[in-house]
Amino acid sequence: MKIAILPGDGIGPEIMNEAVRVLNALDENFEMEWADVGGAGYAAHGHPLPDSTLKLAKEADAILFGAVGDFKYDTLERSLRPEQAILGLRKNLKLFANLRPAILYPELAGASTLKPEVVSGLDLLIVRELTGDIYFGQPRGHRTAPDGPFKGAREGFDTMRYSEPEIRRIAHVGFQTAQKRNKRLTSVDKANVLETSQLWREIVIDVSKDYPDVKLDHMYVDNAAMQLVRAPKELDVILTGNIFGDILSDAAAMLTGSIGMLPSASLDENNKGLYEPSHGSAPDIAGKGIANPLAQILSAAMMLRYSLNMGEQADRIEKAVKKVLADGLRTGDIYEDGTKRVGTKEMGDAVVAAL
Amino acid sequence: MKIAILPGDGIGPEIMNEAVRVLNALDENFEMEWADVGGAGYAAHGHPLPDSTLKLAKEADAILFGAVGDFKYDTLERSLRPEQAILGLRKNLKLFANLRPAILYPELAGASTLKPEVVSGLDLLIVRELTGDIYFGQPRGHRTAPDGPFKGAREGFDTMRYSEPEIRRIAHVGFQTAQKRNKRLTSVDKANVLETSQLWREIVIDVSKDYPDVKLDHMYVDNAAMQLVRAPKELDVILTGNIFGDILSDAAAMLTGSIGMLPSASLDENNKGLYEPSHGSAPDIAGKGIANPLAQILSAAMMLRYSLNMGEQADRIEKAVKKVLADGLRTGDIYEDGTKRVGTKEMGDAVVAAL
Ligand SMILES: CC(C)[C@H](C(=O)O)[C@@H](O)C(=O)O
Ligand SMILES: CC(C)[C@H](C(=O)O)[C@@H](O)C(=O)O
Repeated sequence: MKIAILPGDGIGPEIMNEAVRVLNALDENFEMEWADVGGAGYAAHGHPLPDSTLKLAKEADAILFGAVGDFKYDTLERSLRPEQAILGLRKNLKLFANLRPAILYPELAGASTLKPEVVSGLDLLIVRELTGDIYFGQPRGHRTAPDGPFKGAREGFDTMRYSEPEIRRIAHVGFQTAQKRNKRLTSVDKANVLETSQLWREIVIDVSKDYPDVKLDHMYVDNAAMQLVRAPKELDVILTGNIFGDILSDAAAMLTGSIGMLPSASLDENNKGLYEPSHGSAPDIAGKGIANPLAQILSAAMMLRYSLNMGEQADRIEKAVKKVLADGLRTGDIYEDGTKRVGTKEMGDAVVAAL
Repeated sequence: MKIAILPGDGIGPEIMNEAVRVLNALDENFEMEWADVGGAGYAAHGHPLPDSTLKLAKEADAILFGAVGDFKYDTLERSLRPEQAILGLRKNLKLFANLRPAILYPELAGASTLKPEVVSGLDLLIVRELTGDIYFGQPRGHRTAPDGPFKGAREGFDTMRYSEPEIRRIAHVGFQTAQKRNKRLTSVDKANVLETSQLWREIVIDVSKDYPDVKLDHMYVDNAAMQLVRAPKELDVILTGNIFGDILSDAAAMLTGSIGMLPSASLDENNKGLYEPSHGSAPDIAGKGIANPLAQILSAAMMLRYSLNMGEQADRIEKAVKKVLADGLRTGDIYEDGTKRVGTKEMGDAVVAAL
């Protein structure tokens, strides 16, 4: 089993170290190969997604990704900015299915800005399409407006597009995910305004016929944003497109108040995938040894479950994380009175010990 | 002063009655003319925005709008659905500037799903562009994909577009609004991915030079959705495009837990405007006399201030609403132990009495 280890920038390398230690502690025969990505890729090879890194990612059975971005790369032109690495990996590896859990661990209920009764026990999953939509749709660019009320003016434009097979394959992921959970799926679109969403809804309804045991409902994206704040526990699996999923998954993650705990998976048709924390590279705290490594460690667990067919090892890691939380260990981001504040490495040590 | 009164569907007519009573109680010489819109427009004239209604809206100095939509119109084809009336009015009257306050009245702090310390005193304003973006951008439709990885498949597509003059005029509204408040403006885009957003950011920065007293910052839309949940009081005025504004303004409204209190304004270049509650038509409680009329009443106050140049009368209404809340009167949506539950009409009576 070959795993590409792409730590990236900011706190990426620190938290990746801990995840790798946890993987090593499992005593399996992983072949791990490291490569630069994001700002680190640019610094070493002049591109956020160097050819050698892309090649490794393609060869590997799974990719464990840290985080990218740092202040020092903020002035680069967009095509060289760290986040282009993420977009490039998604597109090149056809990672169309993004799974983003938003889980509130009972021990961390206090970290949420929402009232405990509204969020305690929260466990929702966003299934976001990741290689289509307005993220990649052509044509796009800057031009002189060819028509419309501002004809002749300078304009920026992008194309939102979804084709039937694209919607169909992500819908299947959504329904299959719902089948394994509580058999409820909420498809989010903006079908009252967008043509793309109308097709989305039509195809999702069509796919639903293959899953009579799953209860499907539809929500407009503005309403979904409201329901996430009003009553998030009424939602279970959300299925949505790339841009709406970007917004809603971050809102959902923040409901937990502990985004430092949340992993994510981005999968292709064969369940090969890229695994990364839902949080960013936090350059402001990089190198201080205080970052929370648990999202990275839980991303490794997700990788074992989804791409490497090692569900038991994934369970072991997740149980170890729960034990460490139950023991009261907390990095600064989730610290509360009465718990024990630890650094990145101590947290990693504790998870390894709990294994 | 001619006011078009468009009550619409669901609870629209009930809450509009109370707003009109409040306006009448001011003892000014308003000429009010009523017309059907939304489902009511379709039922009476076969179209959600009948010609006669559009004509009236154009002639009037301001439009007071209720809410549209009802279960019975859900099966109509999209071009006849109630919400087309809103889109049609925005487009035909060039109502490009949507102002959506999210204010949490101290008396209602308990209604929020967020912890009191996170939201008490919340007072933020979203300035949303309303006539451009992917809402109206051509081309759009369903077709056979002309190119891309799913060439030949059926696809739905829409165009996100913003031209320089469109961005410029809404940016001016944003900065001027910020000048009247706390001189802080947060522009929200997705410039790390979208071409449209890149132009948006460039023009907003250019316009900022006219407002050296306003502190401008930029946030990606996914981060904005997170910050609304994490620390909404750190935001003051948010400037954004049509689709992001749709999503964020609903999330922001829901933070208050009392969306039945929130008015909104949609203005053209000359401050002629359409005023409507931020909530919907709530067909499930229509006709029961229990809907909260305060958002509609506060919409009338906004109308007086922005379009009819009657700031003092607007103040009077807003003070009356505050007094009624301080007196403990609550409709069901904002009811808490220890307050007095009243119906739509009693709430209207109380506001009129407090004037
Ligand atoms: C970095 C950015 C391009 C990316 C996205 O918008 O998809 C990020 O926000 C995410 O959600 O993974
Ligand atoms: C009804 C719908 C078309 C509308 C919109 O998307 O703008 C509504 O959600 C709003 O925000 O006023």
